[in-house]
Amino acid sequence: MTTEEAAVPDLTDSEPPPPPPIEPEHEAVFAAHEGGKLEVRSKTRIDSADVLSLVYTPGVAAVSLRIAAYPTEARKYLSSPRTVAVVSDGTAVLGLGNIGPVASLPVMEGKACLFKEFAGLDSFPIVLDTHDVDEIVETVARMAPSFGGINLEDISAPRCFEIEEKLQARVGIPVMHDDQHGTAIVVTAAMRNARRLTGRQEGSLRVVVAGAGAAGIACAKMLYAHGVADIVLTDSRGVIHAGRTDLSNVKKSLLSWTNGSGVTGGIEEALRGADVFLGLSGGTVSEGAVAGMADNAIIFSLSNPTPEVHPVVAHRHAAIVATGRSDFPNQINNVLAFPGVFKGAFDAGATSISEAMKLAAANAISDVIRDELRPDLIIPSPFDPRVVPAVAAAVAAAWRSAP
Amino acid sequence: MTTEEAAVPDLTDSEPPPPPPIEPEHEAVFAAHEGGKLEVRSKTRIDSADVLSLVYTPGVAAVSLRIAAYPTEARKYLSSPRTVAVVSDGTAVLGLGNIGPVASLPVMEGKACLFKEFAGLDSFPIVLDTHDVDEIVETVARMAPSFGGINLEDISAPRCFEIEEKLQARVGIPVMHDDQHGTAIVVTAAMRNARRLTGRQEGSLRVVVAGAGAAGIACAKMLYAHGVADIVLTDSRGVIHAGRTDLSNVKKSLLSWTNGSGVTGGIEEALRGADVFLGLSGGTVSEGAVAGMADNAIIFSLSNPTPEVHPVVAHRHAAIVATGRSDFPNQINNVLAFPGVFKGAFDAGATSISEAMKLAAANAISDVIRDELRPDLIIPSPFDPRVVPAVAAAVAAAWRSAP
Repeated sequence: MTTEEAAVPDLTDSEPPPPPPIEPEHEAVFAAHEGGKLEVRSKTRIDSADVLSLVYTPGVAAVSLRIAAYPTEARKYLSSPRTVAVVSDGTAVLGLGNIGPVASLPVMEGKACLFKEFAGLDSFPIVLDTHDVDEIVETVARMAPSFGGINLEDISAPRCFEIEEKLQARVGIPVMHDDQHGTAIVVTAAMRNARRLTGRQEGSLRVVVAGAGAAGIACAKMLYAHGVADIVLTDSRGVIHAGRTDLSNVKKSLLSWTNGSGVTGGIEEALRGADVFLGLSGGTVSEGAVAGMADNAIIFSLSNPTPEVHPVVAHRHAAIVATGRSDFPNQINNVLAFPGVFKGAFDAGATSISEAMKLAAANAISDVIRDELRPDLIIPSPFDPRVVPAVAAAVAAAWRSAP
Repeated sequence: MTTEEAAVPDLTDSEPPPPPPIEPEHEAVFAAHEGGKLEVRSKTRIDSADVLSLVYTPGVAAVSLRIAAYPTEARKYLSSPRTVAVVSDGTAVLGLGNIGPVASLPVMEGKACLFKEFAGLDSFPIVLDTHDVDEIVETVARMAPSFGGINLEDISAPRCFEIEEKLQARVGIPVMHDDQHGTAIVVTAAMRNARRLTGRQEGSLRVVVAGAGAAGIACAKMLYAHGVADIVLTDSRGVIHAGRTDLSNVKKSLLSWTNGSGVTGGIEEALRGADVFLGLSGGTVSEGAVAGMADNAIIFSLSNPTPEVHPVVAHRHAAIVATGRSDFPNQINNVLAFPGVFKGAFDAGATSISEAMKLAAANAISDVIRDELRPDLIIPSPFDPRVVPAVAAAVAAAWRSAP
């Protein structure tokens, strides 16, 4: 064989290139994922024919017959009524965008781990090979008898709004899109404590929300429901106002209750004199823009991994600063909300997650550290053991008082 | 209040009657089901921000990106590729019939427990709120990216045949309807050892299968594929023969390869001179009917909990007797097959369960006890630790040699 012949690769049986080695800084992450993160176990060791006949045939037939005759007994003898489906179509995964269902699974398996670790709830990831709103709703509705609740995750806007609404109307179990409501609950909790520290009332707060996606809109709605009357949203083209001709229907519908003072322009114009900046945009905001905010401003820069305004910069212009990162104080982390929200919903036998339940969750989170408030402690740590029990109790009570 | 008034129940706020107390003989069964039988766990304790950042954000993003770029890496870093969906619509649950999806869940949770306990495979029950063939296929196909394989369970015939076939054509992962193929594999294994003991060859065997549902048809097909040429099936109206005008399309299609000698009449006529009775009917067969079988007959009465022919009666007319029950020798139990079949399929990266894989599984099960054969030991115990490794290795080898 000549050198020239050897240089010609054999393409007749070509295989895709092998994956590159793991970068050294990611070795610990990939080691934690080896073989997957989730495990489904039998609570009983099945090591004899006697045990087999209790947990499977013939014994199991009596349990099936009892549930068929008395459907409420399902709650007592099945795992499913306290199991959460973590459902995604992989269209808006973290900040990575539409990476598809399989590539979204590390996130969904992780989420299921968090349900178990933080609230003791069983949870299972279901990722879907369709982007169609009605197909997603149909698919999840058909498998709903397998679960006690549905956590929608990382589904892109505006489809996520319609999917959540239609699905909740179809199934008799709680449905929550965590990117919307989990974020909104924790933001509302942190905002409440930030108000307490800076001596502000909801009614007089001027809030600017950067980012009009799932999280931005849900946070704005929840703050509005909590009494914040002056809210301006921006998207990548600037302030959302009535003069814009490029607005989607979802964004148009925001105008009936946001931007009452008719602000126009960009984020800098919006922030002039504002009390609160809430960043959920994935973008960045200049120091000049936040410099124009009111005294004792509140800045929540929640984009991950790069906050809209770096916390060091933000502190030059604000009294209180929060981010989505664990390496700065005041981390806004959804894990403060979703485990306790579903636990409380299950405890109360709730069939949906009402606005009252979300507000109760936000209040419970903020009240956990009511007596410890400091500018660098407006929200509890995700590992504060008081959080999940407090949220679950508040959410269950809210459902029971207004089911 | 008068006595008469007190006797009138208040129907304005009527509730369904409370479930009756558990019968004493079922107490152990219900105790084993308290709170459900399955648990979904995180393999890693998440007790610090450092661990949280490895198994969830921000670390998880690197794993999602790697899988998006190199899809084969999913097998390495996800739980899903070795997780079996146990899927049912609740239409043919044990011998209980169409009791619906929720009432089927004790069986499906039990099945998932067996996958873990016997083969170490994770498994999760998905029960469906639809009976429509195409809706079931669509629903399962859409969620297939969440799983490594699909075990269809307790779906009524003839829909089960079409669902399995259409679903396997849609998804790139193994699909197996256990009521058909799990049963057929174990019956074929036991039959092989019964032949060895009675000195018979496949080609000369006369087999009568009582019951032309999912299991009966699948067993007949597999025995035929294994070389048994003379097979007669019966249903509740007698022998399936060309003269009948009441046959469904599925049963009509059996006539091209069964009942070549044109037997007519009932089970008694069919059994006259037969070597093997295989009962999968849910009914009973008289002693008179089995009395006419050949010398050294083989009787498998697999209906549960009441065998077609009681084993004591069967022994008067047969050399070898098997049932589906754990309290008699020679229990035909699907748990000998499905855990090892899926384990082998996953080990080999199989995308379907081929006939060769099923035959390899049957041969492996029967060979485990090849040197120990006795009339009361033609099939290993479900707790024989040699079974699952032998089945998995044989199934994986069969796929690798003919993928």
